[in-house]
Amino acid sequence: MEISSGLEDVYIKHTALTSIDGEKGVLRYRGYNIEDLVEHSTFEEVAYLMLYGELPSNERLATFRASLEKGYVLPDYVKKIISDIPRSAEALTIYMTAFAAMSAAENDFKWSPQTDKQKSAEIIGHAASVVANANRHISGKSVVDLKPSGSYARSFLEGALDRKADAKEVRVMDRALILYLDHEVPASTTAALVACSTLSDMYSSVAAAVAALKGPLHGGAAESAYLQFDRIGSPGNVEKWFNENIIVKKQKLMGFGHRVYKTYDPRMKIFRKMDDEIVKSPEDRNMLQTARKLEEAGVRQFGPKYVFPNTDFYSGIAFKAIGFPVNMFTALFALSRTTGWLAHISEYNESEPRIMRPRALYTGPGPRELAAVSNK
Amino acid sequence: MEISSGLEDVYIKHTALTSIDGEKGVLRYRGYNIEDLVEHSTFEEVAYLMLYGELPSNERLATFRASLEKGYVLPDYVKKIISDIPRSAEALTIYMTAFAAMSAAENDFKWSPQTDKQKSAEIIGHAASVVANANRHISGKSVVDLKPSGSYARSFLEGALDRKADAKEVRVMDRALILYLDHEVPASTTAALVACSTLSDMYSSVAAAVAALKGPLHGGAAESAYLQFDRIGSPGNVEKWFNENIIVKKQKLMGFGHRVYKTYDPRMKIFRKMDDEIVKSPEDRNMLQTARKLEEAGVRQFGPKYVFPNTDFYSGIAFKAIGFPVNMFTALFALSRTTGWLAHISEYNESEPRIMRPRALYTGPGPRELAAVSNK
Repeated sequence: MEISSGLEDVYIKHTALTSIDGEKGVLRYRGYNIEDLVEHSTFEEVAYLMLYGELPSNERLATFRASLEKGYVLPDYVKKIISDIPRSAEALTIYMTAFAAMSAAENDFKWSPQTDKQKSAEIIGHAASVVANANRHISGKSVVDLKPSGSYARSFLEGALDRKADAKEVRVMDRALILYLDHEVPASTTAALVACSTLSDMYSSVAAAVAALKGPLHGGAAESAYLQFDRIGSPGNVEKWFNENIIVKKQKLMGFGHRVYKTYDPRMKIFRKMDDEIVKSPEDRNMLQTARKLEEAGVRQFGPKYVFPNTDFYSGIAFKAIGFPVNMFTALFALSRTTGWLAHISEYNESEPRIMRPRALYTGPGPRELAAVSNK
Repeated sequence: MEISSGLEDVYIKHTALTSIDGEKGVLRYRGYNIEDLVEHSTFEEVAYLMLYGELPSNERLATFRASLEKGYVLPDYVKKIISDIPRSAEALTIYMTAFAAMSAAENDFKWSPQTDKQKSAEIIGHAASVVANANRHISGKSVVDLKPSGSYARSFLEGALDRKADAKEVRVMDRALILYLDHEVPASTTAALVACSTLSDMYSSVAAAVAALKGPLHGGAAESAYLQFDRIGSPGNVEKWFNENIIVKKQKLMGFGHRVYKTYDPRMKIFRKMDDEIVKSPEDRNMLQTARKLEEAGVRQFGPKYVFPNTDFYSGIAFKAIGFPVNMFTALFALSRTTGWLAHISEYNESEPRIMRPRALYTGPGPRELAAVSNK
């Protein structure tokens, strides 16, 4: 019996959601190229596409938007719980705690193809409210409900940042929400699937996904990449820093490499372009120039080994330029990915539900006699 | 490429914790028979054994107990959060929320063989306090810290039930905590492993496990078995009920059958014996007699197909006799299993850490052109 280490090459489900061609750098949601979706669709349309399989008519989009907006309002006890969490907590701790608490309303939860999708829409609405409030709470602001604005990205941004958002910020946020929406079954999605396979409810399954995303090997890459640019400081320092740290000390280059892509990650190219459009302050511009120089050095060194920058290399610069602190980057990823988690768990429970029960290979001691330590 | 449905027969790790011989009905923790452990050891000793590999000396046991007791005290914000959750919530919602919230203190968490085990002991202490307070909260009582009493089972019971516990109740609770402590890698343990494989912290990983345990296919069996006895009502009704519901209507007999055991579950036999010792009231005695009659009918019918009663068949009667409501049964399972989760995640991260990243097999539409629904 062999161990399937890291579950590598173990296929845990069928999916009609996302297909990745790692050789050619192509990412498709339900058959549509990610570049086309970002160009022509909004997050709401893509979320609908992922849940229902087709892009929505205007009428269906309006109904879907109403469900999202219903979710902008959090139950009072959840708002209270968010306020109770120490402000020093990670944003994802707030997300996980709020979702765990919201399972309180799900005692009699039953999976059903008739109601799962509408429920998913409300949960996607809740996610925007929870993540916006995570940003508010860690920056000392009060917990509020989001205001419907006709755009999910705008409602989220204006709640999170406590100010009006301009059209450019809304477009970049909307596109970021599309870009991180799904990526097959990484650890977070797998955790959600394991949880939902016992017929646990949607909030609990999402909480399990967040628990996995929280780990630095999974969700933290955008943050590490950004902090790396910050340490380098300016484009002029890149060559020296790269040589000392990456070539000589053989440190890991953050934001480079991916288990699936053997070329440029198509999402990365879109983020790079958006960065150029959104950066305003000289500091942010300097950071972007540092990143581009580092990309050059990294590709020169690692490109021949098929290691290229991934999405997380350039996403942080966009999030920072919009106005988010570095410790919110992973929560923004989580906000987008919530739709992917929900689409995968609905797909699993509607088409091939089976409780996940793998095995462990026993390698411990044989039968032993008990020399009692205590008298009971 | 084949789908590994339900991860059946996929080996995800090595383990030196638990071995099960499902043909002979033998369960061992680190080589020791479950019957011997229940007879000669306390929960604290078995928890130490699972974490460290050997039974403790008196001195080590004292240190371990001190760490458990440290965990009896919950941070104030966690007590506040528990109080905020609606009293109608499932006990496991309270458990999951409290653990998610406690990850707030783990921003810079690093796995380390030097500190993991001590931290695990404190977390096991926290679990007792959280589950005791879940019982208090859903029955309208205030949230408190547990009082050290020299026995984990006693401290838990006296906190949970808000009264002194007698020696018999403590012994039954202590044994129940040993019996449910670990059972290889069911869905809850798998969810914990997926979460910790990203280097997420221990509290988050336990929250992921609870998310999976919450599902009715996993943790809810003791509750369903008990409710089934309740519906039957008395031993005299068993034959008629069994014939109508199980034989004719082919309903599922709750508390029977197990993916691993093809004979009597050794834990079940211990619970059956304990039930006989602990039931006091005529109602509880009537319930036990109903269960025993139902066991006879079930074994007569399904025994020839190697389907026998499992642990959950008799555990609820013991929990009820001690004084717990039916909706606490799964949380008592979780309290015991917390040690198994922590032992498995430490074992994984100390010996073969690798991020869990399975695959999904794409079966959706081929490349499609985007007919834009909206103008962005």
